[in-house]
Amino acid sequence: MRWALGVEYDGTQYCGWQSQPGLRSVEGDLALAIASVADHDVDIVCGGRTDAGVHAAGQVVHFDTHAKRSMYAWMQGVNANLGEFVSVCWARPVENFFHARYSALRRHYRYTIFNRRARSALAARRSAWVAQPLDAALMQEGAMPLIGEHDFSAFRASECQSRSPIRRVEMIRVVREEEFLHIDVTANAFLHHMVRNMAGLLISVGRGERSVAHVVDILDGRDRRRNAPTAPPEGLSLRAIDYPAAFRLPARSGMIATS
Amino acid sequence: MRWALGVEYDGTQYCGWQSQPGLRSVEGDLALAIASVADHDVDIVCGGRTDAGVHAAGQVVHFDTHAKRSMYAWMQGVNANLGEFVSVCWARPVENFFHARYSALRRHYRYTIFNRRARSALAARRSAWVAQPLDAALMQEGAMPLIGEHDFSAFRASECQSRSPIRRVEMIRVVREEEFLHIDVTANAFLHHMVRNMAGLLISVGRGERSVAHVVDILDGRDRRRNAPTAPPEGLSLRAIDYPAAFRLPARSGMIATS
Repeated sequence: MRWALGVEYDGTQYCGWQSQPGLRSVEGDLALAIASVADHDVDIVCGGRTDAGVHAAGQVVHFDTHAKRSMYAWMQGVNANLGEFVSVCWARPVENFFHARYSALRRHYRYTIFNRRARSALAARRSAWVAQPLDAALMQEGAMPLIGEHDFSAFRASECQSRSPIRRVEMIRVVREEEFLHIDVTANAFLHHMVRNMAGLLISVGRGERSVAHVVDILDGRDRRRNAPTAPPEGLSLRAIDYPAAFRLPARSGMIATS
Repeated sequence: MRWALGVEYDGTQYCGWQSQPGLRSVEGDLALAIASVADHDVDIVCGGRTDAGVHAAGQVVHFDTHAKRSMYAWMQGVNANLGEFVSVCWARPVENFFHARYSALRRHYRYTIFNRRARSALAARRSAWVAQPLDAALMQEGAMPLIGEHDFSAFRASECQSRSPIRRVEMIRVVREEEFLHIDVTANAFLHHMVRNMAGLLISVGRGERSVAHVVDILDGRDRRRNAPTAPPEGLSLRAIDYPAAFRLPARSGMIATS
């Protein structure tokens, strides 16, 4: 029987989603917690891999088990076996052709900048600090050329293992909320470091260091080395993953709707 | 010369504001950081003492120094000597009759509840988790009898050292923001554990365990032992302290206005 889980985590103290020898990963902690409820080892597949320090409010995973437990028992039981920095928000039985990665229609990421002269103790682990004032309207303008289906080679980490550099960006929205500035990006899928490289470039646009026309140059040039520095991981979070309605998964978090 | 600082902190890993032998306090960390900029030891006075695990977005402190530094140098220099969980938001020279505690007109606290069946990894350290649904409208009703000048003996910790149990509560507002429920309380001053005891009682009202009439009974009874359990510290934060405009301190954080 296949189960899907909605998972939330603070990535600060993890080496990222994926298990790595000798390091603490979200995948590793979650697999152990599920195994102790299922009474057997499980392989888990996630909808969007995240890097070290990156958070998730709406990660989705699936795993197969012959253990019979209620939805509530999976959620509560797995949570009881996890530390404070990972939690399961929901559990649902799914058809065995559901796949957390391949069934996904699109992913929603948010990059959060704390934009104040003084750094913030309360926002430290959940945002990137930029002390110079950023012009959100200019950043929104700079984001426009990135929307659509493009070759995002200029926004791709050198270690990216994807076969194609083509992705379809459906939305980029730059929203100021007092001292916070959010860059919300929705795409069918993302290349490795794609959002952080977009955020890095848009920050330099917001500071007035690079023009909107320069964004077009960078995108067209397909050369990562000409792009701005990659923005740090702590500002990034995977907010939601969309699946076909037929799978009847819980609606993505209310946290997405408002922003 | 007297200086005032606006201070933000995550109280999770501190024994509270006040220095205690062998424990790590916000006061202790801040005094060391200021001393290394001033080149001499300083005594610091805060506007609102907070307990272990309680946060602050708008703590205000003052200290005296003969060191001559710019506003920016105090802010930046002290921040450079603090860990990630405490930060100085602003520094201002003030008249020597300014006193962070005695000049304060009123304090604004927020108690935040995360109200979802599943616990939250991302909200864990900044909110109290209540799994059962809470009725915010009922909680607002229950809060009304607490507004005004009252004897708050029923909301006071046994170890409270204040001479009088009389406080003037100017506002209590219960606000739902998706899965979060905030209780915003403004008063001239607070007794020890006063907001956490109010939150504990209002949570039991929101669950339907206690009636609005019961809140009046508890207040009138002046007996802490009859009151609901004290709500946990992680939900509480000191959001702002108001001072007379003549001191020209920076306006309280924009984070207060919206909510």
